[in-house]
Amino acid sequence: MKPVDYPEPFQQLARQLRRLPGVGPRSAERIALWLATSPDAHPEALVAALETAAREVRPCEHCGFFATGPECAICAEPSRAGREICVVETANDVLPIERTGFFSGRYHALGGRLAPLENIGPEDLRIDALVKRIADERPTEIILALSADVEGEATASYLADVLRPTGVPVSRIAQGLPAGGGLEHADQLTLQRALAGRISLKV
Amino acid sequence: MKPVDYPEPFQQLARQLRRLPGVGPRSAERIALWLATSPDAHPEALVAALETAAREVRPCEHCGFFATGPECAICAEPSRAGREICVVETANDVLPIERTGFFSGRYHALGGRLAPLENIGPEDLRIDALVKRIADERPTEIILALSADVEGEATASYLADVLRPTGVPVSRIAQGLPAGGGLEHADQLTLQRALAGRISLKV
Repeated sequence: MKPVDYPEPFQQLARQLRRLPGVGPRSAERIALWLATSPDAHPEALVAALETAAREVRPCEHCGFFATGPECAICAEPSRAGREICVVETANDVLPIERTGFFSGRYHALGGRLAPLENIGPEDLRIDALVKRIADERPTEIILALSADVEGEATASYLADVLRPTGVPVSRIAQGLPAGGGLEHADQLTLQRALAGRISLKV
Repeated sequence: MKPVDYPEPFQQLARQLRRLPGVGPRSAERIALWLATSPDAHPEALVAALETAAREVRPCEHCGFFATGPECAICAEPSRAGREICVVETANDVLPIERTGFFSGRYHALGGRLAPLENIGPEDLRIDALVKRIADERPTEIILALSADVEGEATASYLADVLRPTGVPVSRIAQGLPAGGGLEHADQLTLQRALAGRISLKV
């Protein structure tokens, strides 16, 4: 005799939950059980939050970060104008930098990075918009905060070429040992880059 | 300057996601980002699944397991009638037993267990319904599959008293070492119970 499974609407919910990042089959079932049975679950609150977020959140028309109006809270802040512009791959990369508390300029999300194998070329990224912003906003510096992998490298060197005529200094965030990371855990490439990026100490 | 955070509808979605079991603040944000930005996310499919499950799934009127009609797939199966009834605390406990493939009777979810500190007494559990089912269905045995903790023990011994007059044999699932668990990982109480529940081997 085949063991009975949960009713189909329940399994369908678990399948939908399983698509979420970081949610495996067991957690999906646990979450579905909780949503279906706990008096504290209030699934309608989750539904409402999902619908509101899908309806109200859109990309900022300047930088691509999340906004509820035409421009995001960062671009709307006048004290951030005319400083650095930090170029990131996606809107998801903005807050990790913002939360360091070490950056008080504006951002520019490219919407991806150059990836010839996936047919993503310069025309698919918001590069023209970046060049236009630089002309309009005259930032003091462009900081490239792209991934430390082959495609991130390629995008950074392409951007460096494109941005050279603007005359604005272009830099790239450092690569090296992660904080708290011992040498024994670092791979060869990380060590190579950490060596190449060494900074002389004042003596 | 205070770092900017995500727009409020986005934060509200992350807060709702964080309430799900096993989802911490970082996963909640990762899931919210994915739902808001990934072209594969289709949040409307998750919303639809949630709404359908909330609308269509209800407790089986016999055993309390999840059903889409008045009775669940287990109670609807005639070959399961007149065999054992396995008593569990909640509907969530049914499938873990069902999936062992070692039980082919029916279930009965009490809807909780006796917990005087939380003011949960016998009248809050589906005990009368169990007694009535036993009279109607004449099972061959009642198997108590309750938690191996103080409240599970108390509930089991209360049920043993209540069910004695039915004349149906009552048993309780074994307590002992978990499969694959070495002695060195077992706590004292588990070992005590494993000793007390020892089974003589044929020699």
